[in-house]
Amino acid sequence: MNAESRPVSDAEAPILRREDAGGVTTLTLNRPQQFNALSFEMLEALIAAVDEIARDETVRVVVIAGEGKAFCAGHDLKEMRGNHTLDFQQRLFRLCGKFMMKLTELPQPVIARVHSIATAAGCQLVSMCDLAVAAEHARFAVSGINVGLFCATPSVGLARNMGRKEAFEMLVTGDFIDAHEAQRRGLINRVVPAEELDAEVGRLAASILAKSPAAIRMGKQMFYKQLEMGLDAAYQLASETMACNAMCEDAAEGIDAFIAKRKPQFKGR
Amino acid sequence: MNAESRPVSDAEAPILRREDAGGVTTLTLNRPQQFNALSFEMLEALIAAVDEIARDETVRVVVIAGEGKAFCAGHDLKEMRGNHTLDFQQRLFRLCGKFMMKLTELPQPVIARVHSIATAAGCQLVSMCDLAVAAEHARFAVSGINVGLFCATPSVGLARNMGRKEAFEMLVTGDFIDAHEAQRRGLINRVVPAEELDAEVGRLAASILAKSPAAIRMGKQMFYKQLEMGLDAAYQLASETMACNAMCEDAAEGIDAFIAKRKPQFKGR
Amino acid sequence: MNAESRPVSDAEAPILRREDAGGVTTLTLNRPQQFNALSFEMLEALIAAVDEIARDETVRVVVIAGEGKAFCAGHDLKEMRGNHTLDFQQRLFRLCGKFMMKLTELPQPVIARVHSIATAAGCQLVSMCDLAVAAEHARFAVSGINVGLFCATPSVGLARNMGRKEAFEMLVTGDFIDAHEAQRRGLINRVVPAEELDAEVGRLAASILAKSPAAIRMGKQMFYKQLEMGLDAAYQLASETMACNAMCEDAAEGIDAFIAKRKPQFKGR
Repeated sequence: MNAESRPVSDAEAPILRREDAGGVTTLTLNRPQQFNALSFEMLEALIAAVDEIARDETVRVVVIAGEGKAFCAGHDLKEMRGNHTLDFQQRLFRLCGKFMMKLTELPQPVIARVHSIATAAGCQLVSMCDLAVAAEHARFAVSGINVGLFCATPSVGLARNMGRKEAFEMLVTGDFIDAHEAQRRGLINRVVPAEELDAEVGRLAASILAKSPAAIRMGKQMFYKQLEMGLDAAYQLASETMACNAMCEDAAEGIDAFIAKRKPQFKGR
Repeated sequence: MNAESRPVSDAEAPILRREDAGGVTTLTLNRPQQFNALSFEMLEALIAAVDEIARDETVRVVVIAGEGKAFCAGHDLKEMRGNHTLDFQQRLFRLCGKFMMKLTELPQPVIARVHSIATAAGCQLVSMCDLAVAAEHARFAVSGINVGLFCATPSVGLARNMGRKEAFEMLVTGDFIDAHEAQRRGLINRVVPAEELDAEVGRLAASILAKSPAAIRMGKQMFYKQLEMGLDAAYQLASETMACNAMCEDAAEGIDAFIAKRKPQFKGR
Repeated sequence: MNAESRPVSDAEAPILRREDAGGVTTLTLNRPQQFNALSFEMLEALIAAVDEIARDETVRVVVIAGEGKAFCAGHDLKEMRGNHTLDFQQRLFRLCGKFMMKLTELPQPVIARVHSIATAAGCQLVSMCDLAVAAEHARFAVSGINVGLFCATPSVGLARNMGRKEAFEMLVTGDFIDAHEAQRRGLINRVVPAEELDAEVGRLAASILAKSPAAIRMGKQMFYKQLEMGLDAAYQLASETMACNAMCEDAAEGIDAFIAKRKPQFKGR
């Protein structure tokens, strides 16, 4: 596991840890005492890390994980109460939305590694990752409504993962759903026993690592764009993307290998 | 159950009953002999009732129920045949669409209490409520096609609750699905034995009643708007909503209570 | 089974077989040695057949089937490598998108009869049919990524049948899902043992054949249009469609029959 660990803050214990190993970069939220709350500082660290990764062609897959008891419990309520101005709240939620958008804009696929509870903006974080794998005791809620705060920004991701009635119920009740229900609804892809979580995330990452980086990059970018288009425009974009992809070296190699019944050798990046 | 009953028509037995109890207003379709068909008069009564509720801050949750054997069997076919002009049909379906839109525009969450069959525009009514609880023997169909009438307006709500192939099959076959299947597809939230239907609707309503009315109101309005937006615009709207919500008294109280580990005291309206 | 078989190519063994029986037209992909690959020629044959069917009022339901071991394995990789120019790839994928769009534009409902594997553009073909019935050992994948080619055009249909995370996982892993999982996700409507596949497709077709052709035609056209609209515009279109439908002879007959408790006699076309 030739891993190297780089702090993304100057502190001894950075609030966001980055580890790189064999093309997989793991970003670990590291404020376990605060249940990895998405404070202003944490969001800035995440944005900086994601911007760096976007330019780093050695990174092929990104994993987002949480340290300690919780995966992520959403925003930092104490920080919000300590900065009780409209200006601060606007800057906070815009920053949060900006970070969440960057996950879909990132060229590399992003996997949420959900080992425990994901609430409010923590649930939103799961919803906005391209893929998610959860331990079977993980639980999910958009619980802001319990403190008088409708989870508006989380609802954006949530309602694009599951049915509108399913999302609305979670938003107005604040109730938890378990990992199996989250999978059934489309919020997460896979559920495994806790002790198999890393292995399962590893298997999913390995499957992506075996593919052509150029094809994954072109594909992910097209995927989210076409989702917001009508059928006709979506097909125009997808046809153009696929034609360009077909002219890539990796596609030529992949098809030649397929016809010759051998394993393809894709370019590393 | 300090309930007061107000007729919304002058008749002895109003076609739409309204009962208010503890912040929950129940509108009961009361044409049991006609399986609660959505006649022109019924739609006008529903619109009047919903408009009144929209301005009534004592109402926190709306429940839509049906009297008699059926929840709602859709439009009144005899009335349609007795007014066989394009003008009447246009006015009827526009009125129906207007009412259905008002359910999502209403500040208060709307729960469908489905005790039995919901067909055609009755199934549409379920699909357009924010939430739905059904008795386990309830059944759902968009059965207009059986009488030569494709359920066009019902398809709008149906296809926004479930997958397009699932909706299309129901629309061209007219076949029923049962309550468990309706839940699996996202048309309803909860299924319970008939004798527990009122208790379950009550539990869902109680959960909403315990929340901040201001947060629920802002949240519901934002929820349906953002559903029709691209990701970027949705996040802009949601961020602004959440920042405003965070400046509300109820959010301040909710967060303070959370930090102090006590129950929050939200303002009644 | 008063079936007549018309070749759509001059060859002895046409690449696309058309059979007409009792209002149901079956188009069978007939390149079994190539796993029914969607070559340029096959796509042109499909477009010609679909254009002909669109004008043929004797056709009430279309079934798309595959001859041999596979339902359809996607594009013809050898043909793609043998024409390695951007111009060819663009023409190929535009032609493919054009054909797929025509399936939703066709007045008649289209049922995919999936007896075996459907991969890449073969899986896209299933996703773009209005309805799909599969044998229980059928399997589905968007496996282009295995040969360095992200299934961009298939992703358009796939992401409009199932959740975005479910679709994204299939697109970046190339993994298969089985027929039951495909049904759960909304990619197909029904799963049956292989020996009952034709009977089940027949039952679904028979259910549509029993309906008013005019109502089905108006309904299908409206259905896909309203899916791309906001709620307000969708209701305007649906209300107008339903009012027009209500003025049709078939609707008058259907409602009269319903009121008289007799079977309706719809006009054949």
